Amino acid sequence: MRMVDIISKKRDGGELSREEINFFVEGYTHGTIPDYQASALAMAIYFQNMNDRETSDLTMAMASSGETIDLSEISGIKVDKHSTGGVGDTTTLVLAPLVASLGIPVAKMSGRGLGHTGGTIDKLESIDGFHVEIIKDKFIQLVNDNGIAVMGQTGNLTPADKKLYALRDVTGTVESIPLIASSIMSKKIAAGADAIVLDVKVGAGAFMKTDKDAEKLAHAMVRVGNSVGRNTMAVISDMSQPLGFAIGNALEVREAIDTLKGEGPVDLAELVLTLGSEMVVLAKKAGTLEEARKKLAESIKTGRALEKFRTFIKNQGGDPSIVDNPGKLPRAKYKIDVPALKDGVISNIAADEIGIAAMLLGAGRATKGDSIDLSVGLVLDKKVGDRVKKGDKLLTIHSNFQDVDEIKARIYENITIGSSAEKPVLIHKIITE
Amino acid sequence: MRMVDIISKKRDGGELSREEINFFVEGYTHGTIPDYQASALAMAIYFQNMNDRETSDLTMAMASSGETIDLSEISGIKVDKHSTGGVGDTTTLVLAPLVASLGIPVAKMSGRGLGHTGGTIDKLESIDGFHVEIIKDKFIQLVNDNGIAVMGQTGNLTPADKKLYALRDVTGTVESIPLIASSIMSKKIAAGADAIVLDVKVGAGAFMKTDKDAEKLAHAMVRVGNSVGRNTMAVISDMSQPLGFAIGNALEVREAIDTLKGEGPVDLAELVLTLGSEMVVLAKKAGTLEEARKKLAESIKTGRALEKFRTFIKNQGGDPSIVDNPGKLPRAKYKIDVPALKDGVISNIAADEIGIAAMLLGAGRATKGDSIDLSVGLVLDKKVGDRVKKGDKLLTIHSNFQDVDEIKARIYENITIGSSAEKPVLIHKIITE
Repeated sequence: MRMVDIISKKRDGGELSREEINFFVEGYTHGTIPDYQASALAMAIYFQNMNDRETSDLTMAMASSGETIDLSEISGIKVDKHSTGGVGDTTTLVLAPLVASLGIPVAKMSGRGLGHTGGTIDKLESIDGFHVEIIKDKFIQLVNDNGIAVMGQTGNLTPADKKLYALRDVTGTVESIPLIASSIMSKKIAAGADAIVLDVKVGAGAFMKTDKDAEKLAHAMVRVGNSVGRNTMAVISDMSQPLGFAIGNALEVREAIDTLKGEGPVDLAELVLTLGSEMVVLAKKAGTLEEARKKLAESIKTGRALEKFRTFIKNQGGDPSIVDNPGKLPRAKYKIDVPALKDGVISNIAADEIGIAAMLLGAGRATKGDSIDLSVGLVLDKKVGDRVKKGDKLLTIHSNFQDVDEIKARIYENITIGSSAEKPVLIHKIITE
Repeated sequence: MRMVDIISKKRDGGELSREEINFFVEGYTHGTIPDYQASALAMAIYFQNMNDRETSDLTMAMASSGETIDLSEISGIKVDKHSTGGVGDTTTLVLAPLVASLGIPVAKMSGRGLGHTGGTIDKLESIDGFHVEIIKDKFIQLVNDNGIAVMGQTGNLTPADKKLYALRDVTGTVESIPLIASSIMSKKIAAGADAIVLDVKVGAGAFMKTDKDAEKLAHAMVRVGNSVGRNTMAVISDMSQPLGFAIGNALEVREAIDTLKGEGPVDLAELVLTLGSEMVVLAKKAGTLEEARKKLAESIKTGRALEKFRTFIKNQGGDPSIVDNPGKLPRAKYKIDVPALKDGVISNIAADEIGIAAMLLGAGRATKGDSIDLSVGLVLDKKVGDRVKKGDKLLTIHSNFQDVDEIKARIYENITIGSSAEKPVLIHKIITE
């Protein structure tokens, strides 16, 4: 088998066999196939696509390219949730303890943020002492004892995907549905998920800008998951504006605590219940979505979800008292209110640009090596569809430097006040096949 | 400027600016742009094409990526001829002395053969003592004194093209019209041509299999040449069957001598006169193609063309007596006739497969490092459209090993005897814009 023939076959619209896909993934992982052939293949796939079978084979080849996590020592159905990345997306922080509180094992591998999108590990690290550097045995023990643990992605998981993703990033081949789908799904499968709930974000702050593209990606991932024996479904959710109010690490932890208390933003709470119900059903802890939703609401109401969050923090070295005293979380030196400049209705809050404003405050990374400031960020007071009067607070900047003129300018540029606007629909679609 | 943006722009069907093309070619030549980005761009170009302006800019960027040959010390219009490569293509060996005999300066850089296609330098080296390793000053002096010289391609000519061509070869990106056109034209321009006559071969033995593709390539190259101030035209000529009778290095030199004497195969002689007339007109040594053709025929008839060939050989260290005594050329040990197995009309001689048969005898290289046997090859007795009786000689194998069963089998597989067949048209089209 020759790599150049595989590239040419795909370039000409051919269907790659499992053997050809394995040849590529194995060769690329071990360095016998060079980057320049991999990037040419990626570009050919960009133009010629892959069918479901090819995408599944690519997913499984990448999933087994390195270490895989065996979660069989944990009893119960391990349901993983994955978000394609958004701005102010506090969902995992709320969902993990919430579903764990219903006895569903949460054994989660998470990542860090990049660009305008945040990462769960960064957010959790704003809790004093909390860490995710735990070995696999400890990780499994924590899940068995307490039903929940989060660890960082290990170095040996899906090396083929790591290598290919880095290559795609610099060769204009990121935006390919089969390549995105296989990248995400290979990681979930290698991390030991039995079932997968996908939160595919759509809109300005998301990778997928249109419903059409988001649905394509969702279908591709759901079909891959189901075809390799992992029950998978996807929720397509709005990311035209930031989710909830808070954008920034400690600020989002605070918002997560509010939400676990039943006092969080409406949209965040609704998304948590939607995704959570699906997870509960896939974990077979409820027969219907209605029943699942009722159980989740109950767990919030009784405080069991919040209690599980406390246990989770404590188990991983964090200070659980922040749950009752969120003021102990890192706080920025300056709080600067940004008022509306005219009367009207908020018609747009461009999620990506607002995410970049938070990044410029230090809440996120422009490049992988950057360090971040856990205390800073933005807290919205208004969302799209809200009526404002001139001088009303639009949001508060939490900053460790005083001169935020540039950031303010960026915010004003990206929050539009018009004459009328509907509140955007949060859940665009549910994809199950 | 970032290479990834250039790749993405082309991927999305955008037109690259001259600055972007120069950024790529310079960066790639100097190694600041890696192979994996170049191959991704090449694949994007494969799918999205380049317009004439982009192709011209790419050509000129590659032409000036290394050393260029300044032929200004040679007076007269330097017309170069380039063939896209075929089987048994003895044209250059005849054309070079023929047009030189009319006072047109022939300062030619030639290459070696690869795969089923031959190379002019290999053919010339079958003349005892002949060599092309001459320095530039000597090369120019030879042309000024005698009107003709051939040298090997220097190491520093169009390094960008060399690097990109090698990369395309292993990344499934060879078959792109703008990339082929710029590769060929950049070399001609760097080698100092004032005007260029292109022989674009079409058919089984050529790189372009269909007239449509051959015409596309011819148009692209002609437009590039003319847009950068080099008068350029193209002849699309048949390569469904080998050109002339001989395939193999010394065998083709012998055929060239016959043709210079006016005793060569009809198709080779016709192609030589067609290409030659165009060269003579471009060099302004005749006002019309008819006048040019008359002058060329005259030069053959009077022996001036043959005399020029003699001088040319002598000037580059070769033994000119082979012109009068071709038996001195390297000869194979065995001559094995291949007879027709039935009565009928030759309906196909698959040029590529016949070229491979000659290569397997040792006449050509499977890979660049291979050494070749200058004496061996094939000499056809029949061509497409010829009537044969069972037992008639189809061709003669010239071999240095006796067991040629495998080669015979390949020959029989690729020469078809049917009930009727037309002689193929030699000149398919003339492209001037």
